Amino acid sequence: MLKQAASKYRAFPPVRLTDRTWPDAVLTRPPVWCSVDLRDGNQALIEPMDIPRKLRMFQALVAIGFKEIEVGFPSASQVEFDFVRKLIDDNLVPEDVTIQVLTQAREPLIRRTFEALEGARRVIVHLYNATAPVMRRVVLGLDEDGIVELATSQARLFVELAAQRPQTQWTFQYSPEMFSGTELAFSKRVVDAVTGVWQPTPGRKCIVNLPSTVEHSTPNIFADMIEWMHRNLARRDCIVLSVHPHNDRGTGTAAGELAVMAGADRLEGCLFGNGERTGNLDLVNVALNLYSQGVDPGLDFSDIDEVRRTVEHCNQLPVHPRHPYAGDLVYTSFSGSHQDAIKKAFAARKEGDIWDMPYLPLDPKDLGRSYEAVIRVNSQSGKGGISYLLESEYGLELPRRLQIEFSQVVQTVMDATGKELTAQDLFQLFEREYGVRSTPAPTHQVLEEAKGASGPVVKLAADVVLGSRNLSIQGAGTGPIDAFVAGLAQATGENLRVLDYHEHAIGSGANAQAVAYLELRVGQQTLFGVGIDANIVSASLKAIVSGLQRAQASRAAASSALSPSDQE
Amino acid sequence: MLKQAASKYRAFPPVRLTDRTWPDAVLTRPPVWCSVDLRDGNQALIEPMDIPRKLRMFQALVAIGFKEIEVGFPSASQVEFDFVRKLIDDNLVPEDVTIQVLTQAREPLIRRTFEALEGARRVIVHLYNATAPVMRRVVLGLDEDGIVELATSQARLFVELAAQRPQTQWTFQYSPEMFSGTELAFSKRVVDAVTGVWQPTPGRKCIVNLPSTVEHSTPNIFADMIEWMHRNLARRDCIVLSVHPHNDRGTGTAAGELAVMAGADRLEGCLFGNGERTGNLDLVNVALNLYSQGVDPGLDFSDIDEVRRTVEHCNQLPVHPRHPYAGDLVYTSFSGSHQDAIKKAFAARKEGDIWDMPYLPLDPKDLGRSYEAVIRVNSQSGKGGISYLLESEYGLELPRRLQIEFSQVVQTVMDATGKELTAQDLFQLFEREYGVRSTPAPTHQVLEEAKGASGPVVKLAADVVLGSRNLSIQGAGTGPIDAFVAGLAQATGENLRVLDYHEHAIGSGANAQAVAYLELRVGQQTLFGVGIDANIVSASLKAIVSGLQRAQASRAAASSALSPSDQE
Repeated sequence: MLKQAASKYRAFPPVRLTDRTWPDAVLTRPPVWCSVDLRDGNQALIEPMDIPRKLRMFQALVAIGFKEIEVGFPSASQVEFDFVRKLIDDNLVPEDVTIQVLTQAREPLIRRTFEALEGARRVIVHLYNATAPVMRRVVLGLDEDGIVELATSQARLFVELAAQRPQTQWTFQYSPEMFSGTELAFSKRVVDAVTGVWQPTPGRKCIVNLPSTVEHSTPNIFADMIEWMHRNLARRDCIVLSVHPHNDRGTGTAAGELAVMAGADRLEGCLFGNGERTGNLDLVNVALNLYSQGVDPGLDFSDIDEVRRTVEHCNQLPVHPRHPYAGDLVYTSFSGSHQDAIKKAFAARKEGDIWDMPYLPLDPKDLGRSYEAVIRVNSQSGKGGISYLLESEYGLELPRRLQIEFSQVVQTVMDATGKELTAQDLFQLFEREYGVRSTPAPTHQVLEEAKGASGPVVKLAADVVLGSRNLSIQGAGTGPIDAFVAGLAQATGENLRVLDYHEHAIGSGANAQAVAYLELRVGQQTLFGVGIDANIVSASLKAIVSGLQRAQASRAAASSALSPSDQE
Repeated sequence: MLKQAASKYRAFPPVRLTDRTWPDAVLTRPPVWCSVDLRDGNQALIEPMDIPRKLRMFQALVAIGFKEIEVGFPSASQVEFDFVRKLIDDNLVPEDVTIQVLTQAREPLIRRTFEALEGARRVIVHLYNATAPVMRRVVLGLDEDGIVELATSQARLFVELAAQRPQTQWTFQYSPEMFSGTELAFSKRVVDAVTGVWQPTPGRKCIVNLPSTVEHSTPNIFADMIEWMHRNLARRDCIVLSVHPHNDRGTGTAAGELAVMAGADRLEGCLFGNGERTGNLDLVNVALNLYSQGVDPGLDFSDIDEVRRTVEHCNQLPVHPRHPYAGDLVYTSFSGSHQDAIKKAFAARKEGDIWDMPYLPLDPKDLGRSYEAVIRVNSQSGKGGISYLLESEYGLELPRRLQIEFSQVVQTVMDATGKELTAQDLFQLFEREYGVRSTPAPTHQVLEEAKGASGPVVKLAADVVLGSRNLSIQGAGTGPIDAFVAGLAQATGENLRVLDYHEHAIGSGANAQAVAYLELRVGQQTLFGVGIDANIVSASLKAIVSGLQRAQASRAAASSALSPSDQE
């Protein structure tokens, strides 16, 4: 493979901006954030979002605090058009939020785009055309003059169509697509020509967005390119300078940060770096990097797990366990020496101190997470690991977050007893902690199954033993679990939600049992319940009761006086 | 959450290296690579590798071309000690590969480490102690002089223990742990003191390794720190300057690249960025970034999927679908305009041209991958997507890579017919493509089940209809699938392997069926087979036959004359 490297690929030409200033810049305030989850992110999904998912994503973005949200490409398909209409017609865009839509520089698409926006209060309309040599030569068949003519003629159409709709407050945005692969002088020429048509003013700026449509170079070269544009563009004081980095080289976050240091005012990207191929700039990452340096990013990630679940639901793609700030494993330490250092530093830390903790760049509590010291039953030995033993001896395949949760239960016991645990000890501990034997299966009966407007509706009645209480409950939902949770929440007054669900068989044939692991949110607590039963529905209902009992027990323990073992 | 940013966190102090040279450096050759998958990567796993997994990882690293491999922390546990002994005693380290081991700066650990290395041909012994202020103050209770005394006294012990074992060729390595959080002047002081003890020469260098144990700053500041050390360290010509970046801010790859531009000679990291918390520097990423710039990295990733599967097996953690170069989705385009541009550029490209393709920074063929244009049955509409329809109407949950494969089958049909497909059309196409109805279940019989030295052994006989052939086969393996594949490979002469396996139920109760999706490697081809049957074993065996038939059919089609539909 590799001998051909030199003859097949060439190095990206550097800018040689020898008087660059960005390496000495320090970020002291956040950029303007623009989420493109609903456009660039959505178009790169195996299953693009349907309207309910789009709405859920939009509402999550608003709740986080985004003020500029690219909501689609309305001329590309009916669904995209309909979603923009829905936002406008149902008045779903808050007063302080501006929606943005993308259109290619082609007259019928632009006309259709303005149709989609009829009656909107305030919109950013985003025009793009490709500018890179390979696109001019191979795809568009246009020379440089041809590209400038294309861009300016369509920019003029923007002015004309906007003038016909004075009730809307218009902001224009232009992207030379593939800026990262275009000669700088030509990028400047096209952008200057477009802003020449739009004639922005300092009071009524337009947005110029420079995408690394494909990331071609180390991020310092991208920063040089942005600083060059920042210094050389005409009408700079009338422009919001935006960048839109991709992540082909795994350095999208760095490219975004260095670009802001180099003069960009605004960042486009997606939550957790969704987007075409390797994804867009990861906005969570950049925002929390700023936060860890004492800069309020103006975006709220104080319940990062909730944000993650919403994004995983909408995108149907996972967030990796090592994803900065949000992954399952990023506040976990397995190493004894790390655990020891963190423990000492927590003990030495006084309220109000500047955060300076070994191995924890940021306080996980600020994101609604917690620090997790995870032990190995038999340190460094896979064959002795908790989940290995439970799986090989008892057929239990614990989900990753449950593995972490249960290992803390094991740690408490080992700290108290000081002895190593066998597979049998672990299984008994697991059974006891999750009430696997002691939780009776709720007797339940499906009263009615009907087809509602938004899918099936199941009504269910059940008798539940919850601790010392006997409850008769009724609930409705999309399925038996959903209906049971609704009924149980109502009967107990608990704020109860299912966050994640895994179930698998143990054994086979007539003796097969199902084990269900349900991750629940009970009030402010996130924890697991477990149920085992021959009937898969009963196993799930047991797991819900198990989790609720654990949550109630831990609240009771916390509110009673500290027991001796807690005072350590 | 965020109002407290300014009072709780502080900005990382910049270096202000105003005469820095790294932003103008261009990488023209690879650094020295050192894999720490078996140490830093392994210690951060929920289930650390057992000895067979460690061996498999070691052999994969050797095959890729690593010449320096950190294999463990032998004084930390018996498993780690045993693995190092096994490598030495069984003579498993190739002549041109050097193993490396880590030890903390504590006398008993160092003595135990040298014991573990008895009789080795050549070793790098890696000493570390923490140097950052928070560790000095809170954890170690030592001032700067105390840290220097600790490091130099243990460095002297290295010299003494090595001198007692002259048959081994020793290289010493020192890491000021938490270099990224330590004052530069103090890092220099400690490192100079240690190299003062070791007295390396230009012909017999030692390694100085500077870790960003926690990534605290933008990568340009890390690069400034490295350039400062590079310029100011004593005995620089006798030192291999190494860096070990972590990824807490999502900029580990950039930090590694900029550090090499700033003067580092060597990079430590892991495949796909495994490692503590957010992981280590991703070596695959940096190597392939270099490759895409025309620099031979000296590491072989020409079968990136095989590397990925090995790493996923050993680490029991997934590689994300958007991971640069290796993710499932990174050579996939969903957008019609992207597909069109790529198609035109492929058509215009001549053999031997420099690679310059829109949206593809690197030729996927160089990594054993292919470019995949994926369509939507009903563009941009989740409700019309192929896998959505197959799941909601027929209960089929296609694995991600199968979704991509099947969508190309659908595209071919749609290109030919020009019409949109219903759920029923899709299901019939799926049945036909994978021979779901036409493949008879192989009749099979387990002849023997025994317990071998390395686990269970199953012997199985089966009668198989493969296309027009009837085969009677026998095979042995760890389970029925394994035994069946072995027998089928032998009977047909095909090089046949199972790469991935998913199976789930459709329907429930007495009518439940199992559907099995097996990803197979048949010779050089990677493809799926699918089987449905009430018996879960029969479903799997059908899926294997299905895949093998598809592979044989596609070879037959390729070797016959081009059919009209291929000439387009």
